[in-house]
Amino acid sequence: MQNLGSYLEQVHKQSPLVHNITNYVTVHDVANAIIASGASPVMTDGAIEDVKAMAAIASGLNVNIGTPTNDYEEVCLKAVEAQAQGSNIIVLDPVGAGATEYRTNLCKSILDTHKVSLIKGNLSEIKALFTDEAQTKGVDADIADKATEDNLDSLIEQMQMWAAQYELIIVATGEIDIVLDPFRAFAVYNGSPMMSEITGSGCMLSGVLTAYVAANPKDQLSAALAALCAFGIAGERAEQLTLERGHGNATFSNYLIDELYLMDAERLDENADYEQR
Amino acid sequence: MQNLGSYLEQVHKQSPLVHNITNYVTVHDVANAIIASGASPVMTDGAIEDVKAMAAIASGLNVNIGTPTNDYEEVCLKAVEAQAQGSNIIVLDPVGAGATEYRTNLCKSILDTHKVSLIKGNLSEIKALFTDEAQTKGVDADIADKATEDNLDSLIEQMQMWAAQYELIIVATGEIDIVLDPFRAFAVYNGSPMMSEITGSGCMLSGVLTAYVAANPKDQLSAALAALCAFGIAGERAEQLTLERGHGNATFSNYLIDELYLMDAERLDENADYEQR
Amino acid sequence: MQNLGSYLEQVHKQSPLVHNITNYVTVHDVANAIIASGASPVMTDGAIEDVKAMAAIASGLNVNIGTPTNDYEEVCLKAVEAQAQGSNIIVLDPVGAGATEYRTNLCKSILDTHKVSLIKGNLSEIKALFTDEAQTKGVDADIADKATEDNLDSLIEQMQMWAAQYELIIVATGEIDIVLDPFRAFAVYNGSPMMSEITGSGCMLSGVLTAYVAANPKDQLSAALAALCAFGIAGERAEQLTLERGHGNATFSNYLIDELYLMDAERLDENADYEQR
Repeated sequence: MQNLGSYLEQVHKQSPLVHNITNYVTVHDVANAIIASGASPVMTDGAIEDVKAMAAIASGLNVNIGTPTNDYEEVCLKAVEAQAQGSNIIVLDPVGAGATEYRTNLCKSILDTHKVSLIKGNLSEIKALFTDEAQTKGVDADIADKATEDNLDSLIEQMQMWAAQYELIIVATGEIDIVLDPFRAFAVYNGSPMMSEITGSGCMLSGVLTAYVAANPKDQLSAALAALCAFGIAGERAEQLTLERGHGNATFSNYLIDELYLMDAERLDENADYEQR
Repeated sequence: MQNLGSYLEQVHKQSPLVHNITNYVTVHDVANAIIASGASPVMTDGAIEDVKAMAAIASGLNVNIGTPTNDYEEVCLKAVEAQAQGSNIIVLDPVGAGATEYRTNLCKSILDTHKVSLIKGNLSEIKALFTDEAQTKGVDADIADKATEDNLDSLIEQMQMWAAQYELIIVATGEIDIVLDPFRAFAVYNGSPMMSEITGSGCMLSGVLTAYVAANPKDQLSAALAALCAFGIAGERAEQLTLERGHGNATFSNYLIDELYLMDAERLDENADYEQR
Repeated sequence: MQNLGSYLEQVHKQSPLVHNITNYVTVHDVANAIIASGASPVMTDGAIEDVKAMAAIASGLNVNIGTPTNDYEEVCLKAVEAQAQGSNIIVLDPVGAGATEYRTNLCKSILDTHKVSLIKGNLSEIKALFTDEAQTKGVDADIADKATEDNLDSLIEQMQMWAAQYELIIVATGEIDIVLDPFRAFAVYNGSPMMSEITGSGCMLSGVLTAYVAANPKDQLSAALAALCAFGIAGERAEQLTLERGHGNATFSNYLIDELYLMDAERLDENADYEQR
């Protein structure tokens, strides 16, 4: 693995076009977070012809099911299909899987019919896709679904089986973030508790992950690790500024994007806090 | 009535799940304002199965018709129906009622078929729902529709009749805010003129009202009064910071949410400025 | 031509109602930028009856095709038709024209059937509407499509032919902005490179242009020039504050709106940097 900063530099150098099918709650922040990471976002999900044409020319596709419509299954599947014939970088953010059957089934239908590159969710959402047990509170993880030093290795073992079965990367977010493929696994300790006090941290992260993986298609796991550390470091810095200046969650949300924008390879390498498990 | 701060504390303690059917203009701020108040937002309105499932598990439903679609009547009615079988906390924000017949009729259709807990609008919107006279300028109140010390008591008398007829709470916003049910009425003097120089103050307030009422179902009027004062105090503090630092309306909008996030029971009780009428 | 500040003052004096059919990515900023300019925004595009009724009472219509739906052609055409029977101020922002056929054809269909007052796009988008050659990267201009001092006069000549053919104003944005009708042309040098590092600068500008033109229907070209200078000056000031304070692109985005809000006639006249060509 190269130093993490080199993956960031590839994003800035190539500025990949990231097509986002995403929810209307956090879409603005997703766009600015992708720009802040050095890539170029485009959003389209309403007109099927436009969706297919855009997915075909994009370097990566980020599918986030946060505010689905009746047409979503068709839209998502067609976009995934169009992108698969291109650079074939497909990220799935199963927002609220486990909270409603509709969401769980929509994600399973994508997973069962197409090759996805990476899934990013909280532990409840990840579980909901691969087991029949999970429960999600709206779009937040169930309080029981939490990675700790005690259960980390068994969680990783379990998730690597799923990753092998579906040949993909899994990013499970929480106080400790996990990123793994069937062969390697990392725990990431960067991040801030304020990230769960805004809407959109998870959605922004998925956009940033897509940008990093699209710019580094030959080493996707390392690129995802770099994205996760970059995002966590931005959160730490944003939290510090927010507290120092007496701001609240809305300003934190802006600072988080600001700090992605201000991030460079050196800062990423110096502050990345992860370990291979 | 308990002190207002205790209603805020209930929101933080219970963190109710608030399902929002809301417009795509201000949805991001609504989500962050709900989080800032201590509750947990979820937004979904496009896929009817998902809408029904989410409304059924939510502690409260906030219906804001700001950017309606052709399916909105069905979506809103199904969501209201699903929520009514659960905790039955339903807030209606009739954005732009009076400006177009479509909006007026959509709201009347909800009101006529289901029990709504609380309606929040400017005076033009409120009038449009209960009379055939009102006119609304886009989504802003007509200039003639203004509560003053002179007409306050007669406005309250009129609105209490409507509140009795539909068995609900009415919140009418303006320079003086009014909150009432058929039995009690309060005038709230907290707030800032900058709140009408951003998009979304009204929408955020509806989300915050839903959170407070959902967390305090047994004393909904007092909870609504607490929400209104908390929101107004946040506006006053945000205005002061904005002016001191030479910012404009976009930064004010973020500070408004920040100040909701920073609010606690003590600050709310010390700064609440209202009187029973 | 009057001094540019007088056009700004008309916006504040009349506070025209601007109906926006716009994308869900940047809609919040568009609303706040229109308010910051002194006008009153309303957004609606989903329910056809509501769209027609709102367009009919608005002082201007801003059609931005950034996130189209399958119904968009009908929605846009009906809105344009309704507005044409009123004040007939119609601005078209052909976001991503040239990137997909769907978008190019949608814009051409509006242009071919209705009188549009003003088109605002980057050079790639403008070319895509009037020639069969252009290519757009997602929603960003192709790198080859760039106005410089060397090609400025020939670009103007070409665009004035299109402006004459369709009887409209063209605003082409880039490092140098161009605004012209068949008879007069201006190059605008205000602006900041950070404007291309956020989502929504172009969308906000279209909203602001609509507000200025709607408030100054008898001298639309000068009004558009004033809007373009005001927006560029706001960008310059926002950039300076952002760099001084060590912020990134998200805070810049808010400062840009703040500076529109803080703009007055005097500041606009003192800092406008343009020349007639």
